[in-house]
Amino acid sequence: MRPSKRAPDELRPVTLERGVSKHAEGSCLVKFGDTHVFCTASLEDGVPSWLRGQRRGWVTAEYGMLPRATHDRTRREVNSGKPSGRTQEIQRLIGRSLRAVVDLEALGERQISIDCDVIQADGGTRTAAITGAWLALRDCLEWMRVRKMVDGKVLKDHVAAISCGIYRGTPVLDLDYAEDSAAETDANFVMTGSGGIVEIQGTAEGKPFTPEELNALLDLARGGIARLVDLQRMAIL
Amino acid sequence: MRPSKRAPDELRPVTLERGVSKHAEGSCLVKFGDTHVFCTASLEDGVPSWLRGQRRGWVTAEYGMLPRATHDRTRREVNSGKPSGRTQEIQRLIGRSLRAVVDLEALGERQISIDCDVIQADGGTRTAAITGAWLALRDCLEWMRVRKMVDGKVLKDHVAAISCGIYRGTPVLDLDYAEDSAAETDANFVMTGSGGIVEIQGTAEGKPFTPEELNALLDLARGGIARLVDLQRMAIL
Amino acid sequence: MRPSKRAPDELRPVTLERGVSKHAEGSCLVKFGDTHVFCTASLEDGVPSWLRGQRRGWVTAEYGMLPRATHDRTRREVNSGKPSGRTQEIQRLIGRSLRAVVDLEALGERQISIDCDVIQADGGTRTAAITGAWLALRDCLEWMRVRKMVDGKVLKDHVAAISCGIYRGTPVLDLDYAEDSAAETDANFVMTGSGGIVEIQGTAEGKPFTPEELNALLDLARGGIARLVDLQRMAIL
Amino acid sequence: MRPSKRAPDELRPVTLERGVSKHAEGSCLVKFGDTHVFCTASLEDGVPSWLRGQRRGWVTAEYGMLPRATHDRTRREVNSGKPSGRTQEIQRLIGRSLRAVVDLEALGERQISIDCDVIQADGGTRTAAITGAWLALRDCLEWMRVRKMVDGKVLKDHVAAISCGIYRGTPVLDLDYAEDSAAETDANFVMTGSGGIVEIQGTAEGKPFTPEELNALLDLARGGIARLVDLQRMAIL
Amino acid sequence: MRPSKRAPDELRPVTLERGVSKHAEGSCLVKFGDTHVFCTASLEDGVPSWLRGQRRGWVTAEYGMLPRATHDRTRREVNSGKPSGRTQEIQRLIGRSLRAVVDLEALGERQISIDCDVIQADGGTRTAAITGAWLALRDCLEWMRVRKMVDGKVLKDHVAAISCGIYRGTPVLDLDYAEDSAAETDANFVMTGSGGIVEIQGTAEGKPFTPEELNALLDLARGGIARLVDLQRMAIL
Amino acid sequence: MRPSKRAPDELRPVTLERGVSKHAEGSCLVKFGDTHVFCTASLEDGVPSWLRGQRRGWVTAEYGMLPRATHDRTRREVNSGKPSGRTQEIQRLIGRSLRAVVDLEALGERQISIDCDVIQADGGTRTAAITGAWLALRDCLEWMRVRKMVDGKVLKDHVAAISCGIYRGTPVLDLDYAEDSAAETDANFVMTGSGGIVEIQGTAEGKPFTPEELNALLDLARGGIARLVDLQRMAIL
Repeated sequence: MRPSKRAPDELRPVTLERGVSKHAEGSCLVKFGDTHVFCTASLEDGVPSWLRGQRRGWVTAEYGMLPRATHDRTRREVNSGKPSGRTQEIQRLIGRSLRAVVDLEALGERQISIDCDVIQADGGTRTAAITGAWLALRDCLEWMRVRKMVDGKVLKDHVAAISCGIYRGTPVLDLDYAEDSAAETDANFVMTGSGGIVEIQGTAEGKPFTPEELNALLDLARGGIARLVDLQRMAIL
Repeated sequence: MRPSKRAPDELRPVTLERGVSKHAEGSCLVKFGDTHVFCTASLEDGVPSWLRGQRRGWVTAEYGMLPRATHDRTRREVNSGKPSGRTQEIQRLIGRSLRAVVDLEALGERQISIDCDVIQADGGTRTAAITGAWLALRDCLEWMRVRKMVDGKVLKDHVAAISCGIYRGTPVLDLDYAEDSAAETDANFVMTGSGGIVEIQGTAEGKPFTPEELNALLDLARGGIARLVDLQRMAIL
Repeated sequence: MRPSKRAPDELRPVTLERGVSKHAEGSCLVKFGDTHVFCTASLEDGVPSWLRGQRRGWVTAEYGMLPRATHDRTRREVNSGKPSGRTQEIQRLIGRSLRAVVDLEALGERQISIDCDVIQADGGTRTAAITGAWLALRDCLEWMRVRKMVDGKVLKDHVAAISCGIYRGTPVLDLDYAEDSAAETDANFVMTGSGGIVEIQGTAEGKPFTPEELNALLDLARGGIARLVDLQRMAIL
Repeated sequence: MRPSKRAPDELRPVTLERGVSKHAEGSCLVKFGDTHVFCTASLEDGVPSWLRGQRRGWVTAEYGMLPRATHDRTRREVNSGKPSGRTQEIQRLIGRSLRAVVDLEALGERQISIDCDVIQADGGTRTAAITGAWLALRDCLEWMRVRKMVDGKVLKDHVAAISCGIYRGTPVLDLDYAEDSAAETDANFVMTGSGGIVEIQGTAEGKPFTPEELNALLDLARGGIARLVDLQRMAIL
Repeated sequence: MRPSKRAPDELRPVTLERGVSKHAEGSCLVKFGDTHVFCTASLEDGVPSWLRGQRRGWVTAEYGMLPRATHDRTRREVNSGKPSGRTQEIQRLIGRSLRAVVDLEALGERQISIDCDVIQADGGTRTAAITGAWLALRDCLEWMRVRKMVDGKVLKDHVAAISCGIYRGTPVLDLDYAEDSAAETDANFVMTGSGGIVEIQGTAEGKPFTPEELNALLDLARGGIARLVDLQRMAIL
Repeated sequence: MRPSKRAPDELRPVTLERGVSKHAEGSCLVKFGDTHVFCTASLEDGVPSWLRGQRRGWVTAEYGMLPRATHDRTRREVNSGKPSGRTQEIQRLIGRSLRAVVDLEALGERQISIDCDVIQADGGTRTAAITGAWLALRDCLEWMRVRKMVDGKVLKDHVAAISCGIYRGTPVLDLDYAEDSAAETDANFVMTGSGGIVEIQGTAEGKPFTPEELNALLDLARGGIARLVDLQRMAIL
């Protein structure tokens, strides 16, 4: 049995609260159980210099964690000059995931900057961030559509993400921190609303895993992401 | 008349919500109108090296802002190597203000780290932070008292802070962003529950101010801080 | 009695020596007793990017300390990547103080950079720096006036600064290092030649201070600054 | 047809040259076609501080690229303060991959540092690096075994890595730079000599991929890695 | 007798291998005994900003060392933010030495960046680097000549470098690491093919040296450099 | 004729003023014409970690320049994270030069830190710094001798430095800025009171120089340094 007492294919309670920032063009406070991430989407004029003049836009993401989001206080990253390797890995993943469902040409020469800041962490912060960031991005694009800056076809699909792992030999969905620390294998999946895989990252923490185990994790993820996409749909009804 | 339509000596609506973090020993989400600051107090073993062996503890503070807490998105400080001058000034101010009401010898050789992260900014973030941080600190000390780590006399008094300014010739209390941008003079006051001044910082943004104006601002601040201290008291009833 | 044996309202011997740099457009070596600060004013073409095209100029300041200006050698700041919080606080204070008496529109789209480098420190370096920097700035503007770059009305007033503190219960003027270390309260005042307050910063080092004490310090400062402004006047006769 | 004219399941010519460094305890120059990586293994006394006293060793890896290893010259990373996000991602991957086949307790309280420096790049530098680094590590452990520092059972298995991708709709093995730039999907696999998966990273560069495509890539990778492991075996005969 | 058993005026075996990089316009792997340096010359459009619009080109150099090029592993410089003082000294020396034989006006507004990366170190890396870099630069200029970008007169002369030292009282040529560590005096000479001195750097490691000793070292260097220039000539036959 | 109208072998007016710092154990303000350098020697307990336990001391040096020491204002180095290459080269040179005349074993496990800060620059700052730093070091050692921390034999000899160059074909001594900018060859010499060479650095700025020219510069330097050593002797009479 899982420490969280959840069934192997059971998500934590998930909530998606939109409009949480007075200033941002789109925003969402996403909670996967005790993991809380504050996501904003900021429209910015112009694009990075390497993209200038190509009549295409860009979506980028940054990720941070409040120092006491974690069980023990973590040193504030500002003091170390650059985001850590882990932070950079996560923010690149969020950016790639969102760009997979955006028509960058339809966006025009503008950049949308996504900020995902973890207020409280209990495992799965990167998957919660991607799932919430999609809503912030969607609301930012809606804000632009209302102002006739873009038409309604910039956003091509939903995107959401979930972690899976092998815990004491059993494949389980949506690991919290206690489960993640003890899992033999840890994998993150990012998929679209129509079921395509955008990103898969699997790591054997202990012994290597088999192709069969990989497929069992993939099946769990497909089910979990379908439910997250449903929640995104309900949030924008 | 003030842009906010408030009376000259009227605070914005203030709320102080305790226990907002699952992990921190003490925490408080403080709101001064649209200014929202998430404050945590983290107990850490040991003290900074320059204090070691002196049988005294330490209270320090760090301050940050989510990138889209502001009207336009601000660059994430992590990328610039060190906190900005403004950030350092504020975190030093918060630390000094709290230490003024803590008996560091009674605390023992331990450090309490205060983190104040601005979720949304609309003027007065440093004064909101000090006012909320006092509650996070108080709950952390209470957490320690219950575990017999300290007795009940570490915290000597309340401390709270408020800004004042001269707006179109009139001294006013608790400036929001619109008022702050247009004020001729801007001053921050930090005072204790018993009315002592811990810190005063006044700056003429436009023309210099007179000693009489300074005293008018001081009077406003005394009234405002008395009300903030009342709110702190009610929050811990 | 004060360690320096001075009367409570007595300044240290102050000297202001102009023209100490072969290269700078204006310069001044200021001494407040054993505190010696080398101030230069450098005329630079163009203004910071955020001010461009606004037909206004800028005055900015930087502050440094030779490593052995202090009793024990201090680590050279170059090795730590950015000025310390204290250094940034001081250089922002110097810049704000000088800008308070400059007509930035009359200056035109040019920047004057003030450098204040402490050759020897014995308390009060920031107040000495402001007092000396005013002379360097004045000579730089005079250099420009002679070359018909500006007319004579750019500089609106004198500005000077002094520290006060409560030492063993008595308010005293112009603290040296020994007095500053032992003072219960420490306050810096920046005022114009016509007696307006530009900046006030007061901090309770030990127990909080009262509004009455604040006013006693303010009175001392007014007298001290009046004398410093007289010395500035004599230096440019 | 592939730009390289190779069959879909065909590796580039691979060479593994041991003993290329006069100083290192183990070393290997690995070539996957025009991708050349210089790998060294350095035995160091002591372990990182967070591992001290646990009677276990550590294997870590660093990755770099000569500035002109690439088609256009790349800026030397030393000037930017920290390894880029990409560099950190790769060196963490190499470290995790090697640790998956090392018995860290049998290693004792010592660290082996692997350095993988790309002399010339033409796609697949991280997979070449892992494959070559295994040989450098193996020779370092052999060097220690000869000196009775460890016995022969520290290294539990082979580990090697290969990239796969979907090029114009066809799954292909071991992408060179031209193929990688044009591939719709790009995946890296790290597997052991006995066929277990250590790490899988798949990214849709263009449109999302299907679970069936993921499995086709996995099959290609299993074949490629089996051949790389054979080449490692021949290199140490 | 020297540890290397060489005669006082005997060079180590020197090899110069051109065309070692698939991407670079010019390249050379130079070996002075066990010191191996990989040199590339990269043609870049445009010149540093301070040189723009002057119708002149620039040759610059960077120098690096693989972490295990040395007997004990050296920390990778990327982690310390900037090249060390030693690295900067060497790369400035290489750049100056090459520019001494290039007609920068004939080069046009282009920059050639030389990279010298030490694969294996055994003393004399900077002198080997200069000697090899000349060939990389020469091949880059030849590449440009063939494409009619420059004519044949950009390169005015050969340049090569060698170290000398006083080892147990005897002046000796081309010190390896063991000799260098024990030498009383260490000097590097950079000279042209026609015998002019471009750079001389002599340092007394132990006791000061005499003008006579300086001249003895200079004579040794002249002979050694003449032989290196011959080897450069043979390499381009 | 030289721009300075001096004879080829004529030094600028040189003054050496001791005891210019209230805090430092030794100090000297050295002037070579318009080049003014403020030198202090600071006694510090303990030695760098790599020297610990070897019963030897250390002398190290740091070098800086006030921003407006130069004709145009120079950016303050603190903002760039590390001393520039030029600064590091100079401070290493000063340190090596002084250590050449100190008996580090007789010094005991202590470090003397020399700070040379250029107040005003007009060419030859590094040679002025070495010449003045010797006096600061000497007074620091004398301060220690009086306190019985060392005996009188720590300092083995004088050391001083001078620049020479070839200006319009003529070898000249002690170049000021105008001469230095136009010189074809620039060389710095560091020599002891007894005439031994500690360091020589010669660079052809334009065309290479001959061995004969090198010897002419060396002769000039010997004369100049002899005079500087006389001035050091007079300063401590």
